[in-house]
Amino acid sequence: MKISVEQAVTAKNDAIADGLRQRLARERVFCLNIIAAPGAGKTALIEKTIQGLGPQSGILVIEGDPHTRLDSDRITALGARALQINTLAGCHLDARMIGDALAAEDLGAVDLLIIENVGNLLCPAAWDLGEDVRLVMTSLPEGADKPLKYPETFARAGVLVINKIDLEQVLPTTVAQILENARCINPNLPAFPVSCTSGEGLSAWLDWVRRQCLAKRKA
Amino acid sequence: MKISVEQAVTAKNDAIADGLRQRLARERVFCLNIIAAPGAGKTALIEKTIQGLGPQSGILVIEGDPHTRLDSDRITALGARALQINTLAGCHLDARMIGDALAAEDLGAVDLLIIENVGNLLCPAAWDLGEDVRLVMTSLPEGADKPLKYPETFARAGVLVINKIDLEQVLPTTVAQILENARCINPNLPAFPVSCTSGEGLSAWLDWVRRQCLAKRKA
Repeated sequence: MKISVEQAVTAKNDAIADGLRQRLARERVFCLNIIAAPGAGKTALIEKTIQGLGPQSGILVIEGDPHTRLDSDRITALGARALQINTLAGCHLDARMIGDALAAEDLGAVDLLIIENVGNLLCPAAWDLGEDVRLVMTSLPEGADKPLKYPETFARAGVLVINKIDLEQVLPTTVAQILENARCINPNLPAFPVSCTSGEGLSAWLDWVRRQCLAKRKA
Repeated sequence: MKISVEQAVTAKNDAIADGLRQRLARERVFCLNIIAAPGAGKTALIEKTIQGLGPQSGILVIEGDPHTRLDSDRITALGARALQINTLAGCHLDARMIGDALAAEDLGAVDLLIIENVGNLLCPAAWDLGEDVRLVMTSLPEGADKPLKYPETFARAGVLVINKIDLEQVLPTTVAQILENARCINPNLPAFPVSCTSGEGLSAWLDWVRRQCLAKRKA
């Protein structure tokens, strides 16, 4: 019975997500859903993306966390808009939360919607938020085995960001090991090794984001 | 309706956990339930605990992960016993899983049962496993804000381990910041800053474990 309740809930979620996806297509907004463990550096990547593209470049951020406005405060401090969703005991965002957050929003000036999911490498993977691309992020200090332990999350991703590569000199884990394990699960996954601290790899990441936004505007 | 289903499920869990706790009391086994984000170093702490106490010192480990036997292979490689639970899409261990894993186990020679929960800083907090002490672990690369974002997890913990303190020189986060935030949520939480890489802090941690096991044997 628990399973049938869950299936009904995710089916309803998928219907809301499809509606969101249609709205974002009409409004020509490219949408990323970022999934990662707590502390992988999701907010840092969004900060670097805002700084790289410019805060007035049409970026809207939705921040998901059980508690606090700490992350949306970091985003608004850079001059971009952020909507905070606090899930309390909830371990993932769902499409209804995104729909509610965007209901009163004019997306006319928005080109890029970045959703930072709750820090959790497992639960968010089952919930479509209407995104164009699901981004999975892992960081070097987490070790290389995460793609093998959380294969559903990596299998459903459209792009991988490997963060904190500046720590490769002081850690046993290598970027190559993470890539090898990720591609066991998802062979053609595009990957961007970056350091949000040193800036390494960020220009390639920003180029990719610009291309996705441009393709969506022309679609 | 979803909430009432969940409440009934956790109430049933709590009853099974109480039964487990009574068995562990009769058998004088001290039980730790380790909760942390993926990659915080839970398995590394268990490895160091086995090496510090000796593999023949009556340690039994239960390893929880969505997929793979990677962690239990690390434990058995050190000469200790490990039981693997793969939760697949499940984001936490529950008391029934622990009860089933231990059903056929003779605990006569076991002094210390260490349960490594699924890597997830949120969902496991709601599930009593019959443990004596719930250990929450965070690591320096995750940043200092985790106690504030996941307050239920830190509020319900009986001990805190802060791992990867050897990286304090190369990261902006400090042990003091994590401690301050953790004690905002849980003022008297005992804390052990350690590095499972350099070994710093581990002797104090091992002393604490020895004292807990001794107190349980004499209870």
